[in-house]
Amino acid sequence: MENRTIMKRLKKLRAKMKDHGIDYYMMPTSDFHNSEYAADFFKAREYFTGFTGSNGTVVVSENWAGMWTDGRYFIQAEKEMEGTGVTLYKMMNENVPTIKEYLSSNMKKGQVLGFDGRVINTELGNDLEKLLSKKGASISYNRDIADEVWEDRPSLPCHDMYIITDELCGKSFKEKLKDVRLKMKENNCTSYLLCKLDDIMWLTNLRGDDVECNPVALSYAFITDEEFHLFVQMEEVTDDVFDYCSDNDMVLHDYFEVADFLKKTRLSGNIMYDKRNVNYSTYRSLLACAKRSNVELENVEDPTEIMKAVKNETELKNIRDIYLKDSAKLCEFIYWLKNSIGKEEITEYSAAMKLDSMRKEIPGFIELSFPTISAYGSNAAMMHYEATKDDFAVLKNEGMLLVDSGATYMGGTTDVTRTIVLGEISDEVKMHYTATCVGMLQLANCNFLKGCYGRNLDIMARGPIWAMDRDYKCGTGHGIGYMLNVHEGPQNIRWASRPGLSDAVLQAGMIVSDEPGVYVEGKHGIRIENILEVVEGVKNDDGQFLHFNQLTFAPIDLEAIDTKYMQPKDIEALNNYHKMVFEKVSPLIDDEKIVEWLKEATREVE
Amino acid sequence: MENRTIMKRLKKLRAKMKDHGIDYYMMPTSDFHNSEYAADFFKAREYFTGFTGSNGTVVVSENWAGMWTDGRYFIQAEKEMEGTGVTLYKMMNENVPTIKEYLSSNMKKGQVLGFDGRVINTELGNDLEKLLSKKGASISYNRDIADEVWEDRPSLPCHDMYIITDELCGKSFKEKLKDVRLKMKENNCTSYLLCKLDDIMWLTNLRGDDVECNPVALSYAFITDEEFHLFVQMEEVTDDVFDYCSDNDMVLHDYFEVADFLKKTRLSGNIMYDKRNVNYSTYRSLLACAKRSNVELENVEDPTEIMKAVKNETELKNIRDIYLKDSAKLCEFIYWLKNSIGKEEITEYSAAMKLDSMRKEIPGFIELSFPTISAYGSNAAMMHYEATKDDFAVLKNEGMLLVDSGATYMGGTTDVTRTIVLGEISDEVKMHYTATCVGMLQLANCNFLKGCYGRNLDIMARGPIWAMDRDYKCGTGHGIGYMLNVHEGPQNIRWASRPGLSDAVLQAGMIVSDEPGVYVEGKHGIRIENILEVVEGVKNDDGQFLHFNQLTFAPIDLEAIDTKYMQPKDIEALNNYHKMVFEKVSPLIDDEKIVEWLKEATREVE
Repeated sequence: MENRTIMKRLKKLRAKMKDHGIDYYMMPTSDFHNSEYAADFFKAREYFTGFTGSNGTVVVSENWAGMWTDGRYFIQAEKEMEGTGVTLYKMMNENVPTIKEYLSSNMKKGQVLGFDGRVINTELGNDLEKLLSKKGASISYNRDIADEVWEDRPSLPCHDMYIITDELCGKSFKEKLKDVRLKMKENNCTSYLLCKLDDIMWLTNLRGDDVECNPVALSYAFITDEEFHLFVQMEEVTDDVFDYCSDNDMVLHDYFEVADFLKKTRLSGNIMYDKRNVNYSTYRSLLACAKRSNVELENVEDPTEIMKAVKNETELKNIRDIYLKDSAKLCEFIYWLKNSIGKEEITEYSAAMKLDSMRKEIPGFIELSFPTISAYGSNAAMMHYEATKDDFAVLKNEGMLLVDSGATYMGGTTDVTRTIVLGEISDEVKMHYTATCVGMLQLANCNFLKGCYGRNLDIMARGPIWAMDRDYKCGTGHGIGYMLNVHEGPQNIRWASRPGLSDAVLQAGMIVSDEPGVYVEGKHGIRIENILEVVEGVKNDDGQFLHFNQLTFAPIDLEAIDTKYMQPKDIEALNNYHKMVFEKVSPLIDDEKIVEWLKEATREVE
Repeated sequence: MENRTIMKRLKKLRAKMKDHGIDYYMMPTSDFHNSEYAADFFKAREYFTGFTGSNGTVVVSENWAGMWTDGRYFIQAEKEMEGTGVTLYKMMNENVPTIKEYLSSNMKKGQVLGFDGRVINTELGNDLEKLLSKKGASISYNRDIADEVWEDRPSLPCHDMYIITDELCGKSFKEKLKDVRLKMKENNCTSYLLCKLDDIMWLTNLRGDDVECNPVALSYAFITDEEFHLFVQMEEVTDDVFDYCSDNDMVLHDYFEVADFLKKTRLSGNIMYDKRNVNYSTYRSLLACAKRSNVELENVEDPTEIMKAVKNETELKNIRDIYLKDSAKLCEFIYWLKNSIGKEEITEYSAAMKLDSMRKEIPGFIELSFPTISAYGSNAAMMHYEATKDDFAVLKNEGMLLVDSGATYMGGTTDVTRTIVLGEISDEVKMHYTATCVGMLQLANCNFLKGCYGRNLDIMARGPIWAMDRDYKCGTGHGIGYMLNVHEGPQNIRWASRPGLSDAVLQAGMIVSDEPGVYVEGKHGIRIENILEVVEGVKNDDGQFLHFNQLTFAPIDLEAIDTKYMQPKDIEALNNYHKMVFEKVSPLIDDEKIVEWLKEATREVE
């Protein structure tokens, strides 16, 4: 069946492209800062394809449109784009060209690729320019054509900013700024354009609400040896924030003035920037500024990233505390779900709403750290499935519900996944669930030398899945912000290194997720996700050993565990973990019935 | 006490340095091809310092001499250089300058650093030139001053070359050459200077005997689209080899003519070379050739390296066969050792001689693949300990003997380590031995996706050692040549990546060693080394799975195994391995008593 809505939109877009002499028009999934979640204002790709996933880039020509997305979304994208005429390109699959390869082989001499340079990163912009110039084609980056077609486009997010106290942050803006200026000096630069929203928030101890689930304000920061310029939407600056900025010698500018500011500024030293995080339009302004000032642009990985990743003692104390509270609430939710299923109608969506509303009861709740994933049965095989108010499955007392959820509170950002048994499950499911549990615990309990990257450890979690000739098509773990983004770098737990992916040696104070899974299309999906803190262990002649401490304390579903698939040490690890869960969480739960249930849910197994 | 011999030699050297206007003269440990083992001809550093270790560089000035070596040799170097006036510089120790740092802070404007550019690699030569030019100092690389002083210098190794039949190699020289030329084309080059000896041997299906334990001939190969030039010592070219070269359109040149040849040659396309493997003098000749021809030098990793690493079916068949024979012989040796200890005097050295002589009985034996390591008790904690005719420990019926050994045969090159119980051992030793066994088997039995590097898998072997807050200060595994060097790249099993170390994704047909260990200084050393072949497993939507097949079949010493440190799956893995050992090796052993012993040594444990 044809999807007329999408087809009409594409038709209008093509007409505008023709008007502006654009042969191919590209729309990625990004705001002006390459944020993980783009606000509705930025969802041009969704508007023109129907595909709602979090990662995808559409390219449109006169008589063709292609949408590129990754393995998490193949099934969903196919479903959502049915009847639109848009072709799905499965990224990383054999014989599937990348966007660059596609454009390079299809664009002809004299043709023009258009895109809004503010939503394209510098590297891609530069690559495309070089690539196409070889073919005699060119780019046009300063027009947002989607905007000319898009009726009722949502407005740019604009919400009040707020201040996090130094007590809650453990380090003041001025102290952090001093560290950043040291890094500028190390890189022989006298100024630095920082465009990464969570890094700007981390540095200033400010927060905002402009990106879904990320407590950040749309902003730029321009730092010199003497000055600190902050570009934000002035409507967001409350009196308190204004005073705080004044007190801290921050010079406030309007968000949209950054390009003009760079155009006017003359500098006497080199400018530091991180090409991964500066959008192509801003990069061009910066380049012009450098040329005029006769100084160099120094592409350096944002030093704020690693500073932010290694949590300080105050942050760690608060994180440990909030993870306990969040875990207790999740336990109450699991109890509710297991005891209500079959008694009242529960859907994927209503279960998510229930959990969300329970989290809101926790003091200091700010917002969800990402939209709760509540996926029943085979829906859970879609790694980033999202049930909505209008499209959901009804839960039955059989199979499992996968719930991946978390929130940002005053005191930390959480993330946790449990796959919950609702009734009968097959032996195969038990085997897969048990392997996932073994993998999660194996990584959590491993001891390793300082110097390790996540790639050295990934097999601890993934090994039990690989042993079954299966894989999960994503990393095992990601970093997590402090009252910030639920996904942050540079550290990660992945086995494959891809160029452009940031990476860092694991060190004490870092937080990583540990989330192996088994996903069988059309059948079931299992994920168990705990959050771990990297801590120091023994130091001896062989070096500094590191290991993990658990931050998440919620039961692994024993109804899905078959100990015949476990070694004694795996069983011991599970029992030890469950003992901790009960000891730490039960004091936070008032309802005796739930405590009783938790006791049973965390019982020792053999 | 003064070491007059060394002091006299240094005095003569200094006089010659003065004659030639050289202020500092540097002598490293290397032949002209950066081979792992340098022949006596190349041991100038030993001649002028007395230090006999395998790694060290001496720098001599008018009134000072310094010798740099690594941690393996600190004690030995101090002892051997006593009374020579040569200062020991302990590499990697805190506050010890590197050679570059030393020269950079001590050399003055106008001074000259001399070295024989044929024993210095391109990168170091370039670095030194740049570094010193900043100080107004310079290098002089085309004079071997040591040669002018060195009385009775051993002659350059010069032994007959021989041909390996195409049947034994599985691929002819001409076929291999075609593949190499394709790589030249891919890199937009019309010629290629190959300096790596084992790569030249692999490519030509020739062998030699010029480097200890490596069946290679000193040689260079210069490949163009049309021609193949081989530079060897003409005395090495037997009639058969001469005919073979003629038949294969190889143009033979004398080994020392390569520089002249490059000086004379004019080329019409870019020249490929690998700066890791080209010595500085040759690089300068190449650079001159490129300049004169007005073409570029393209620094590319020798493509022969990966071609050589992925064994073809013929090679694999022969390797599997020769490893069985080698394993059977090792079993006989272990039997002999266990039954002779306490009955006759056996020393580290005599045990090694015994094993070496047993290997020589295997048809097709060519030479040892490295000097047999036979280390008793605490000697085994020194990773590169070598007992000699004059310096050895006597074995008693207590503790363990570590034996790391192998040979090159017509049909393959072997490498294997067993740590053999001779009598009573402590519980701690059993714990360490069992962890080493578990690590070795865990890596050998893991299932992984194509795309993995060794760094993704290293923890499978190392994890059980790390779990005890211990580490072994070396990689877990290396590649192994086919009738070639026992250590070859580019693949490896290591956890840490160091710049300059080559690496490659593991693929079917590669051979790697799997040799975890525990080394406790002053107490004991344990290493268990099996050789593994990478093979393809299941291929499905998740990708191509790979795993390992065992090539080595010799018992793990059950007297050192305590199953209380093992999980059921580890015990099962050990029993499965031992079952294979008996099944595969017992048919190759004639002596019934040994077969009986092997049956017992490979019995099932619980």
